[in-house]
Amino acid sequence: MFRKVLIANRGEIALRVISACKELGIRTVAVYSEADRNSLHVKFADEAICIGPPRSSDSYLNVPAVISAAEIADVDAIHPGYGLLSENANFAEVCRASNIKFIGPPPEVTRMMGEKSTARQTMKKAKVPILPGSDGVIAGADEALEWAKSVGYPVILKAVAGGGGRGMRICRNKDELPGLYNQASQEALNAFGNGDLYMEKFIERPRHIEFQVLADEHGNVMSLGERECSIQRRHQKLIEEAPSLQVSPELRKKLGGVIEKSLKEIGYWNAGTIEFLMDEDGSIYFIEMNTRIQVEHPVTEAITGVDLVKAQLRIASGEKLNSIITEPIVIRGHAIECRINAEHPEKFTPSAGKITAFNVPGGNGIRVDTAQYSEGVVPPYYDSMIAKVIAYGKDREEAMNRMQRALSQFVVQGIHTTIPLHQKIFADADFRKGDFDTKFMERFFEREEARKATERG
Amino acid sequence: MFRKVLIANRGEIALRVISACKELGIRTVAVYSEADRNSLHVKFADEAICIGPPRSSDSYLNVPAVISAAEIADVDAIHPGYGLLSENANFAEVCRASNIKFIGPPPEVTRMMGEKSTARQTMKKAKVPILPGSDGVIAGADEALEWAKSVGYPVILKAVAGGGGRGMRICRNKDELPGLYNQASQEALNAFGNGDLYMEKFIERPRHIEFQVLADEHGNVMSLGERECSIQRRHQKLIEEAPSLQVSPELRKKLGGVIEKSLKEIGYWNAGTIEFLMDEDGSIYFIEMNTRIQVEHPVTEAITGVDLVKAQLRIASGEKLNSIITEPIVIRGHAIECRINAEHPEKFTPSAGKITAFNVPGGNGIRVDTAQYSEGVVPPYYDSMIAKVIAYGKDREEAMNRMQRALSQFVVQGIHTTIPLHQKIFADADFRKGDFDTKFMERFFEREEARKATERG
Repeated sequence: MFRKVLIANRGEIALRVISACKELGIRTVAVYSEADRNSLHVKFADEAICIGPPRSSDSYLNVPAVISAAEIADVDAIHPGYGLLSENANFAEVCRASNIKFIGPPPEVTRMMGEKSTARQTMKKAKVPILPGSDGVIAGADEALEWAKSVGYPVILKAVAGGGGRGMRICRNKDELPGLYNQASQEALNAFGNGDLYMEKFIERPRHIEFQVLADEHGNVMSLGERECSIQRRHQKLIEEAPSLQVSPELRKKLGGVIEKSLKEIGYWNAGTIEFLMDEDGSIYFIEMNTRIQVEHPVTEAITGVDLVKAQLRIASGEKLNSIITEPIVIRGHAIECRINAEHPEKFTPSAGKITAFNVPGGNGIRVDTAQYSEGVVPPYYDSMIAKVIAYGKDREEAMNRMQRALSQFVVQGIHTTIPLHQKIFADADFRKGDFDTKFMERFFEREEARKATERG
Repeated sequence: MFRKVLIANRGEIALRVISACKELGIRTVAVYSEADRNSLHVKFADEAICIGPPRSSDSYLNVPAVISAAEIADVDAIHPGYGLLSENANFAEVCRASNIKFIGPPPEVTRMMGEKSTARQTMKKAKVPILPGSDGVIAGADEALEWAKSVGYPVILKAVAGGGGRGMRICRNKDELPGLYNQASQEALNAFGNGDLYMEKFIERPRHIEFQVLADEHGNVMSLGERECSIQRRHQKLIEEAPSLQVSPELRKKLGGVIEKSLKEIGYWNAGTIEFLMDEDGSIYFIEMNTRIQVEHPVTEAITGVDLVKAQLRIASGEKLNSIITEPIVIRGHAIECRINAEHPEKFTPSAGKITAFNVPGGNGIRVDTAQYSEGVVPPYYDSMIAKVIAYGKDREEAMNRMQRALSQFVVQGIHTTIPLHQKIFADADFRKGDFDTKFMERFFEREEARKATERG
């Protein structure tokens, strides 16, 4: 096992990694920007090194500064957390060249999975279901009809040169397709000077479902089941849960097996997440892979009992999966996570500043991951997430009730947070029934607006 | 289910019950003494009523004041927590007479189990193994020899009129018994004017093992396994864990069955704990029953997934056990609790006052139950426990490592706490091996003293 690890991150995930290291008897080195001098990740590490001014590009993303700190502190390995340098294959290569173990997959694989079309091809080859796409320009309305017939309606036409919704049309049946094709092509030509279109299967109300995997450096891969992450605002996840109500034990087992096989083939190792969209009819399609630990990893930890960050450390030190996970994975209970952001809960404007009171909820079934505290400061330079609340219960109902209880006991003064937004979501009938998709928040905000308009009227 | 419940307690257990009520959709009424005006149990209840001056006898133990508050607030039921009025059969009777449901067993049973000799006889009749005792005066050395032969050595001679160790002798074999009998009798005569002696089986190195039970009001009883609570100082538990390393699945099942049968016979309902001493050879003897929720209930919650306080509320509202616990109890993982007291960690003098900083540990596998916060006050009038830290892991090793990590991240400033004492215990080789009994802390302090003497020398 490693003697000493540097954590190239900040905030709650830095503290999360420090805690995992402590529990494994590994010494820890924090790095910090000048803005994070008084952060808990600095306080609770065995050593801490300032690596630059507040801006991430000058500190947490400054590869030479991070590597210098690692060399000065004489560490064996670097844990990159999520975001920042975690999916930077270049950084992983510099670590390798500096004889420091990068706690994550090999840079070649990170690079391969970071390229969307390569990742699609790789997964397709490994028999992971991918979202059907024409994989190139559609020659005309006739070819469009033929392609649509092969994948089934609805489909979406997109401009090859496009963006911003222009040259984009959703087609729900063969009768409307030729007309829409011509409209879209014309619009694309006008907007981008290029009328070329490609096509994809269109998912009306997709759910975001992702599978957690662990893989060791000896060719063993294990799927730890899925997470449901459809509650998003502008592609930012707000609430995640596990297991998904939509994934049957059979699908979990079958897809888990396919994923395990595919990652074995590409030589993946350490923790990773395979993201899918799920159709209303239960069909599931690969969209991308994240080659790092995710923000929402605690919901998987809660229902499987596996400590994913400790597993990352043990894998990177050369251990085999079957010595880390000694019994078959059994899913028990239900877990939900709320990301608490330092933002105005309605305007979503960042809310930096001094926290004058910070009372974290506790008690049965509640886990809080945070690096904040009373009299702490939220700097304006970074991601606005200041805490994660994870509620665990014997079933989804108990987990939801615990979350509501915990949110009502989470006191934060001095800054705005999204706690009131989460409280409204947990009171929403559709959310409680589990009836949602990635467009849930759009509808939620529309209802909120309508309600407010009624109140004003 | 109840509409509204009054919590006749303070501190962390009051907050624990409030949380359980919230999760079940029950309105809560806190009561508080003038010293607890700013406590979190007051803040997080839906209503709060001041019931008197700081001293417990004038407030939390003042039955008319508590009942008046319950009547003014128009509650359906009262949860007594632990300590205070929780095992006061009289209070339960006043509740009954006032048409308020007491959340606990019927007063008749509380009274029966509160009388040590009645409890012993009751359990003996129900075939629960009890610590063998002569159940009356031993007529002379010959009868002492005979009785000792029937239960096996070692035995202990005790003065009927006695106390404070006078007239008490431990006998390890038949040769020394007659001499010790005469010494003890003479000593008792000199000390108390009465030379009568009785005898008990003597347990050299007892472990304190207790079984958690739930029983509904329809005659159904369920054992939820045991807790190991041998780490005590002056009969005050410091650290508890579940399961016990000494209790095999067979013993758990067998003894659980005997307990279930016995409680069914005596008409017990709600939560309760049966306390045992375990001999070095694994024999186990009933010592007493606690007819309430225990401080250490969270370790059982952690390994069984059952919320014991919610179960108490549901049972008291008339629900059947099989609708509360719908699947067989499966023990998963290991949990340990540390009681954090506001005391000097070496002198054990109470440390009341204002808490200037209070950073509670969180993260994977850590639960904290507390009603304290930054800028909160520890009043000098009550029990010194200010927080419980519960660490859960896949096995005892992981739970211990998590506890050490959590203790290192628990920041309390302004008062003294026993956190440093717990840190020392978790570094102790015997504790880590699980090699301990109720005399562990005596030996621990002796070693500490010896170590300090060496350092001084």
